[in-house]
Amino acid sequence: MSTHRLSLNTATTKRWTLEEAVDGVVAAGIESVGLWRDRVAEAGLERAAQLVRERGLRVSSLCRGGFLTAATETGIATALDDNRAAIVEASTLGTRELIMVVGGLPAAPGPEQPATPDGDRDLVAARQRVVDRIGELVGFARGHDVRLVLEPLHPLFAADRAVLSTLGQCLDVASRFDARDVGVVIDTYHVWWDPHLRGEIVRAGQEGRIASYQVSDWILPLAPVALNSRGHVGDGYIDFPTITRWVAETGYAGDVEVEIFNEEIWAQPGERTLATMIDRYTRLVEPHL
Amino acid sequence: MSTHRLSLNTATTKRWTLEEAVDGVVAAGIESVGLWRDRVAEAGLERAAQLVRERGLRVSSLCRGGFLTAATETGIATALDDNRAAIVEASTLGTRELIMVVGGLPAAPGPEQPATPDGDRDLVAARQRVVDRIGELVGFARGHDVRLVLEPLHPLFAADRAVLSTLGQCLDVASRFDARDVGVVIDTYHVWWDPHLRGEIVRAGQEGRIASYQVSDWILPLAPVALNSRGHVGDGYIDFPTITRWVAETGYAGDVEVEIFNEEIWAQPGERTLATMIDRYTRLVEPHL
Repeated sequence: MSTHRLSLNTATTKRWTLEEAVDGVVAAGIESVGLWRDRVAEAGLERAAQLVRERGLRVSSLCRGGFLTAATETGIATALDDNRAAIVEASTLGTRELIMVVGGLPAAPGPEQPATPDGDRDLVAARQRVVDRIGELVGFARGHDVRLVLEPLHPLFAADRAVLSTLGQCLDVASRFDARDVGVVIDTYHVWWDPHLRGEIVRAGQEGRIASYQVSDWILPLAPVALNSRGHVGDGYIDFPTITRWVAETGYAGDVEVEIFNEEIWAQPGERTLATMIDRYTRLVEPHL
Repeated sequence: MSTHRLSLNTATTKRWTLEEAVDGVVAAGIESVGLWRDRVAEAGLERAAQLVRERGLRVSSLCRGGFLTAATETGIATALDDNRAAIVEASTLGTRELIMVVGGLPAAPGPEQPATPDGDRDLVAARQRVVDRIGELVGFARGHDVRLVLEPLHPLFAADRAVLSTLGQCLDVASRFDARDVGVVIDTYHVWWDPHLRGEIVRAGQEGRIASYQVSDWILPLAPVALNSRGHVGDGYIDFPTITRWVAETGYAGDVEVEIFNEEIWAQPGERTLATMIDRYTRLVEPHL
């Protein structure tokens, strides 16, 4: 048993500052962190980079860029600015992997507003805008040695957070770009239900696109805020041994990030969350890597 | 503008008895109903059949059979019995189309329970049990001139209600059987997010499997009971003109059922619900059929 490849995504210990989080993982014997930009911003970018460097931690990813579906000139410019800032942050923090949640549809316009070919409900057009924006960012990212990592989100979030819902769909978008520039993340919470998952993981491996493997469980009922419905590995419905083997069979040798959004878990002491996380990882994930 | 192909699924007017529902649709000029078994059972099967016959209504479908994923002998026997009863009911009510919600995984067994190849979290095995049960029911259904209609459910429900999540997946299962015996339903709520939707609808049409087209909208936030989060056509994110055109281009000439689960809509007078439903249908669906 080893936690060598285990990484704490700081979203899991939401109440911890960045400094508390890096101290917490060091105390727990964890060697890697996935960073959310909110905690990095609070600490200040240079100080955040110094903190992880001083503790000798790897940074498995930076979460997150994205939200690229705006259709207006202002919206597009704002999105590009924000993503360029995220690319600089990733580079400064010492990670190549910038996770991209690509964005959803605009708010539902109501029945009076017809859905036109370019209208607010046009998923195909929204997906094309994602491709266009990635194309505009990829050179800047390469210049900073950062990879844009497309994250398929569970179709539960197709309307408001990500118009890319499957790993296969993300690979189709990624295939327009070099694998050094655009990758994908496999997050069990988002993809566990997909009937084509195994084949998509094989393809992601063959194409050299797997930038991150993230784990958390699908639990029911959903939380009042649907986004915060994730559970610790083993508390829900996901078959971690099987999916982990599929990922391992591709030759993926990177970190395994635990990323959990859950109000009840956030209310617990961070040390306890890390202890549970390590227990579940060593029993249900690590033996299958 | 015509409501000739519009059908009220009685789940939409949940507080109405079957008699109130059939009188309501006749008063509103609607010619077809999709029936839920609970209302049929309350009225009594023969009386229910008489009611729809006397009012001269078509029965577009019976909802629902399914829940076929049990792994125990008792669970399997119970499921087969219940589905044979549903087949008899469909036949008696005068519809060929029995909608099948195939069932989810067993309740999450907790982290102490390892996920084995035949374990509770094994989606592939659960899907195979669905195929096996359909195979055991299809002869009985044919004998009653009833078609088993597989319903892909949104991946939101993959854990607890349906291990078939996409239209393509349902077509793959259906392809083992004759198109007169096993069909599919296209329910916008469940499939709108699917990047392969257009191709899957084309395939469903080519293979003669489209047994029903159901419409309701994806609205946010989700309701406290996620199942009851559907909205009237036009109130949410779904592009009805586009999806309706895709269905129409297959040559589908059957009814369009409005099936909405929503506590707020259920609390309103049925007449008002039907008026809204007709308004939205005639503006956003019917022109594209």
